[in-house]
Amino acid sequence: MLKGFNYPLTPKGKSTLNPTPPWHYSADFLEIEFWAEPAAVAAVLPQGLDPDRSANGHANALFYDWQFSGANEEYLDPSRYQYREFFILVDALFEGKPVAYCPYIFVDNDAAIARGWSQGYPKRLGQVFQTRYYAATGKAGPALAAGSKFAGSCTSAGHRLAEAVVTLKEPVKDLSVLRQPPIVNLLHTPRLAAGKQDKPAIHELVENVPHDVKIEQAWIGDGSLKLPVCHGEELSDLAPVRCGKGIRASLAYIVDDLKTLKDLR
Amino acid sequence: MLKGFNYPLTPKGKSTLNPTPPWHYSADFLEIEFWAEPAAVAAVLPQGLDPDRSANGHANALFYDWQFSGANEEYLDPSRYQYREFFILVDALFEGKPVAYCPYIFVDNDAAIARGWSQGYPKRLGQVFQTRYYAATGKAGPALAAGSKFAGSCTSAGHRLAEAVVTLKEPVKDLSVLRQPPIVNLLHTPRLAAGKQDKPAIHELVENVPHDVKIEQAWIGDGSLKLPVCHGEELSDLAPVRCGKGIRASLAYIVDDLKTLKDLR
Amino acid sequence: MLKGFNYPLTPKGKSTLNPTPPWHYSADFLEIEFWAEPAAVAAVLPQGLDPDRSANGHANALFYDWQFSGANEEYLDPSRYQYREFFILVDALFEGKPVAYCPYIFVDNDAAIARGWSQGYPKRLGQVFQTRYYAATGKAGPALAAGSKFAGSCTSAGHRLAEAVVTLKEPVKDLSVLRQPPIVNLLHTPRLAAGKQDKPAIHELVENVPHDVKIEQAWIGDGSLKLPVCHGEELSDLAPVRCGKGIRASLAYIVDDLKTLKDLR
Amino acid sequence: MLKGFNYPLTPKGKSTLNPTPPWHYSADFLEIEFWAEPAAVAAVLPQGLDPDRSANGHANALFYDWQFSGANEEYLDPSRYQYREFFILVDALFEGKPVAYCPYIFVDNDAAIARGWSQGYPKRLGQVFQTRYYAATGKAGPALAAGSKFAGSCTSAGHRLAEAVVTLKEPVKDLSVLRQPPIVNLLHTPRLAAGKQDKPAIHELVENVPHDVKIEQAWIGDGSLKLPVCHGEELSDLAPVRCGKGIRASLAYIVDDLKTLKDLR
Repeated sequence: MLKGFNYPLTPKGKSTLNPTPPWHYSADFLEIEFWAEPAAVAAVLPQGLDPDRSANGHANALFYDWQFSGANEEYLDPSRYQYREFFILVDALFEGKPVAYCPYIFVDNDAAIARGWSQGYPKRLGQVFQTRYYAATGKAGPALAAGSKFAGSCTSAGHRLAEAVVTLKEPVKDLSVLRQPPIVNLLHTPRLAAGKQDKPAIHELVENVPHDVKIEQAWIGDGSLKLPVCHGEELSDLAPVRCGKGIRASLAYIVDDLKTLKDLR
Repeated sequence: MLKGFNYPLTPKGKSTLNPTPPWHYSADFLEIEFWAEPAAVAAVLPQGLDPDRSANGHANALFYDWQFSGANEEYLDPSRYQYREFFILVDALFEGKPVAYCPYIFVDNDAAIARGWSQGYPKRLGQVFQTRYYAATGKAGPALAAGSKFAGSCTSAGHRLAEAVVTLKEPVKDLSVLRQPPIVNLLHTPRLAAGKQDKPAIHELVENVPHDVKIEQAWIGDGSLKLPVCHGEELSDLAPVRCGKGIRASLAYIVDDLKTLKDLR
Repeated sequence: MLKGFNYPLTPKGKSTLNPTPPWHYSADFLEIEFWAEPAAVAAVLPQGLDPDRSANGHANALFYDWQFSGANEEYLDPSRYQYREFFILVDALFEGKPVAYCPYIFVDNDAAIARGWSQGYPKRLGQVFQTRYYAATGKAGPALAAGSKFAGSCTSAGHRLAEAVVTLKEPVKDLSVLRQPPIVNLLHTPRLAAGKQDKPAIHELVENVPHDVKIEQAWIGDGSLKLPVCHGEELSDLAPVRCGKGIRASLAYIVDDLKTLKDLR
Repeated sequence: MLKGFNYPLTPKGKSTLNPTPPWHYSADFLEIEFWAEPAAVAAVLPQGLDPDRSANGHANALFYDWQFSGANEEYLDPSRYQYREFFILVDALFEGKPVAYCPYIFVDNDAAIARGWSQGYPKRLGQVFQTRYYAATGKAGPALAAGSKFAGSCTSAGHRLAEAVVTLKEPVKDLSVLRQPPIVNLLHTPRLAAGKQDKPAIHELVENVPHDVKIEQAWIGDGSLKLPVCHGEELSDLAPVRCGKGIRASLAYIVDDLKTLKDLR
């Protein structure tokens, strides 16, 4: 019997892109709140999700420096399992309930692509960076202090897709300010068979159900974001009309499940 | 309606990893024939495929420098669609008929990963290189001539997985020497939902049906291949017991279909 | 005694970035003629070179897919010695004689950076791509034929710096159309010692003297080039006012010398 | 007048690989103490440095996740200035005084190559990773606690050159345990001019003189290191006979000077 969760399936299961869940994650992240044109947000929503008119184009841009592990100390193989990520979450409604939908996401690692596609995150490869905080601060390592700045950027297929800065104001005292609506994705697997290329094998709305979420070292302040126009890319259609708060924090959680909300086929 | 074949599905369909088929390909390639331990070949075969006892562990290693295009001149965006690939094909039987099965494959591009997964190629990211032939030859650009050498290498997750050399002897006069049995892959999409992680959403044997295959500039000679032992990898279990012929040629074909042979669930 | 031409110098000389010259090169290349603002061209010239008023801002943009070798079959280690390059040459005068000066150049390989710095090419890392020609043509591999298009692109530090297309018209019959003035570079090595940071250790005009130049498969047609404005970059100051001819060809040559024209310290 | 410290020198000085010093650095690092064959250490020393017989082959392997800045908030452009590094320091004597010499070093960024070569660090490109510590810990983000493990790896030109693990025991109470002898490098710039290729333009022993060194969050424990044999590489000649302590800490410092000890030409 071949073993593995993602490709490739092999005799010992060591070559697979990912071990079987549970999947453990830790990260530092930047989050920038913004408002896009409401029509542009409505346009990226899949069937089954409705625009949240009251949100007025509200969205978040997120930069994550991730570390991943399964049960076998995969965090000790960082060349295979450490990665960086940029993504967008837009406000939407599922059966009248607020959710966040991810139309665009970029990572720099194949194991992360595979896990993402298993969860409905439409990941492409990108080069993603964010300013780091170090315990030893100085002019190159900003302190966790009012006025400190942290920047993020994402490039894919040679084009700069996103640039952001978070300027810290104060530590987050009430973590409820970080609470997000559940993330609902479009899980999609195409069919290459002739005559079925418009009939995907899988096409459903799914809800991410991470647990054991921990947040540490959270600071809040101002966010700024640019989504430049690039040939062959649509991300800039969500360019900010205005930006809101900015967050910098560390986060850990576990993923071992996915909930199907609706089959769209 | 969202558009796109692979992720992401977007309003205009420009950001998708791949346009809708037909998919057009051109490449230069190196092919190295080898024989692995028959038991190691048998061990990588999925349910539904049988070892070809008469093949005695026969396999091929292939290095491709690819260019891809859909219908919209995607070959003019080589940062997005040009890529390099290394893979292994082992001899097997499907219902008694000779086929080639791909247990391992590496590419350096996300659009290629997406197309691969749609065809059952278990692609991971790798850094793949092969010596190039240029019309202007010299000590850095070997001629298409007897004695010329072309090398290939593949690295993934920081480990050198494969190294090969093809030494040319003579042009291929009868192209039938290049004929391969059909490629049969394991098309696999896992399910992350708790309780279903051992029940993949898709798990079937599929046959690749490329057409309009053209081969040019084919030379034949001797092949040599190494598949070094690496931590966390199983490819080396297929290390050559001996090597056979080596090929260097150019190839073009079209992919617009996939044939399901058997649902394995 | 430690051995090696470039860093690192080691007991056996195997780890060095480059073997001792002669250095052998083969490549496919795209060349796009253009005219920038004459004042912008004048502004990039180092001391010792004068603007060529009659050139009216004339320059060339070049994309090269290179293969390198020393005396020990380094072309059989393409992961270490194969690379891609984009650069600009602007017309200038040295003591009244026409020369070409390279203000910007990008490669995707460290051995190429080291050789470049030894020759006064101010190389930075970039991701460079050009459409390839394959003997097996089709929709993904353009033929060497009138109307065929070949594109090039360069990205560095996450920004798309250059995009170009060459559209073929006809084979080059008279190779003298490809003749270039000699390339004169600014060879520069800074000093980090406090108080000497504005007194470079090396700062001289040098002339490249390649020999055994071969050109094959040359086609000529129309060139088009964009040099987009990017944060933190000055290349776009040379953006084309208009473009001229485009070339696609293969080239080989040998480098084993450098001629100092003038010490500028 | 053209501006810039390293290549390229340009009208505005924005495109240069690096701003003028002072250069500010922050990092997290892993350090693994080991003993190589004393003869192998002696073999990598340049003229002017003597083996430290009492050191018995003593050396350190170091993995750094760096952030760099000049005076203009370069840390807000992490795609250009953030980088990862692996290097070896071997014990040696300069005029009888203990020093540390760097025979091998790898980084994943061109600005870091340029600064390194200005300081005599013989940098090549590599893919370097180390396990990260996050404020939000878990199975993927090890705590700063006894028993926690942090791994590092380095790959260059497709070969895995180094793998290490540091297992924490306790916080460092007395920072003097982290004190190092001064780093003395071989500053080397070759000459390409025919007849002078064995007469480097610069060839001198230099001492690094960083200042304002801060160390935070230092933990000590056990180190383990592997330097596997790779084709075309000599690093494995320094493979550990045994390993000693392991350190994990954060560090910041400033570089704005370099002291020439001896011209070796």
